[in-house]
Amino acid sequence: MSEHFTEAGSVDAVTSRTGPETDARLSRVMSSLVSHLHAFAKDVDLQQNEWSMAIEFLTKTGKICSDERQEFILLSDILGFSMLVDAISNRRPKGATESTVVGPFHVANAPKRAMGDNISLDGVGEPCLFTGRVLDLDGNPIAGATIDVWSDNADGFYDVQQPDVQPKWNNRGLFTTGEDGSYSFYGIKPVSYPIPDDGPVGKLLAKLGRHPYRPAHMHYNVSAPGYNNLCTHTFVGDDEYISSDAVFGVKTSLVAPFEPSDDVDAKWESPFDFVLAKA
Amino acid sequence: MSEHFTEAGSVDAVTSRTGPETDARLSRVMSSLVSHLHAFAKDVDLQQNEWSMAIEFLTKTGKICSDERQEFILLSDILGFSMLVDAISNRRPKGATESTVVGPFHVANAPKRAMGDNISLDGVGEPCLFTGRVLDLDGNPIAGATIDVWSDNADGFYDVQQPDVQPKWNNRGLFTTGEDGSYSFYGIKPVSYPIPDDGPVGKLLAKLGRHPYRPAHMHYNVSAPGYNNLCTHTFVGDDEYISSDAVFGVKTSLVAPFEPSDDVDAKWESPFDFVLAKA
Repeated sequence: MSEHFTEAGSVDAVTSRTGPETDARLSRVMSSLVSHLHAFAKDVDLQQNEWSMAIEFLTKTGKICSDERQEFILLSDILGFSMLVDAISNRRPKGATESTVVGPFHVANAPKRAMGDNISLDGVGEPCLFTGRVLDLDGNPIAGATIDVWSDNADGFYDVQQPDVQPKWNNRGLFTTGEDGSYSFYGIKPVSYPIPDDGPVGKLLAKLGRHPYRPAHMHYNVSAPGYNNLCTHTFVGDDEYISSDAVFGVKTSLVAPFEPSDDVDAKWESPFDFVLAKA
Repeated sequence: MSEHFTEAGSVDAVTSRTGPETDARLSRVMSSLVSHLHAFAKDVDLQQNEWSMAIEFLTKTGKICSDERQEFILLSDILGFSMLVDAISNRRPKGATESTVVGPFHVANAPKRAMGDNISLDGVGEPCLFTGRVLDLDGNPIAGATIDVWSDNADGFYDVQQPDVQPKWNNRGLFTTGEDGSYSFYGIKPVSYPIPDDGPVGKLLAKLGRHPYRPAHMHYNVSAPGYNNLCTHTFVGDDEYISSDAVFGVKTSLVAPFEPSDDVDAKWESPFDFVLAKA
């Protein structure tokens, strides 16, 4: 039998109600959630009109979600919650390359490419040579690693955002390392772009005096048998949004060199080694 | 310029981004929300698959919302959050009648009734005489107070849930107190009923080993010029769900007598005085 509700005893009133057969992890997560949400309401003396605004905000956020748009993930992103969960879920030993959020634009089963191929199929943008190695924590090359890469085009859009404009698989590809663990491919120097900001999350960003831009980045998912999967980006360090990524994806260790290149086919060169930890 | 993201510095990474022109209250509320949400994720070491489940849950909760159904309010209710916000927003001096949640079934502009009228228009259920007075904190009667009442019918449904079955305004009415501050009307002894449990919130309740029932109650909104509005319920004390209200609406002081009546037109009698605090 639970106690009747009191403001002071609000957390216990709720958490004590959880049944004895409840999954232990669910019980733990929900109890903590209730505890922290109630602490938040008490901390700010949350008023009913503010609660009503929150209900309306969540409802609008739900209504705009579709197969093509996930506004709740966007909300999680701009509150730094996605990056936090990524960090908690992907703690790695010192020396291993850090992860960052997957983002909404990954597409599975991109075409396999040979090292040295060009993934920029529309030929627009500033050509960039991406090179480096996939290594273990001891600096040994990892052969047979799959490198899945994707970026926006020179206009700041991924191919899936412009199916009628961009060639399918523009700026995407799968590469497999050989014995020396190295990789190289041509693409473009990525450009910054805004997250979708015409919905409730965009309105919230504006009210908070925040812009919706992500600094330019190249996405990588690096995997190899026996190693932890690494989903990360490399960032263009001189991007105007490098210190104000709308989704907090930037980590200091992921800011990569983008340097003028001597290569005849590239204006830029971005060398970056990926270090995987054992699974 | 904000710091790049780190797990340890996650809260500051987000809150430091709020612009200088931001409304001070919004800034305070959002900073506290971010702080408590991040503390929650860290507290339970929230994993990415759990985060994905939460995103899916919120999306489904949004999708089921309609003009007739507000699943986010239901979610707030079953987490005790609605009652907490009600308590924070409606702190009253000792001696004033306590508030509880409005619930989804209030309808404005119910018909005005004379004292002694019967609001049970379908004539089903156990007749009950509701009587009492509206008083100030010194025990003086408040004349001209409006008492807006609503309850379910004997089958556990409000008229608005069964527009084709129940007479319009069944078990609803507006009463105005005279010089002695007293009120009296006939209705039925209310019955317990489940909140809508065929959506995501109902599934969550089930996973938590909780039932969806609310103990039987009569809704009152008591208002008078110069006094704080009082939205509350009175509860049937011997209801089987009195100590396990799915939405935590029960407060000890709101459990009302429902006693056998000597009145020829009623089986039960429920005397209850409402004490209003000055605005």
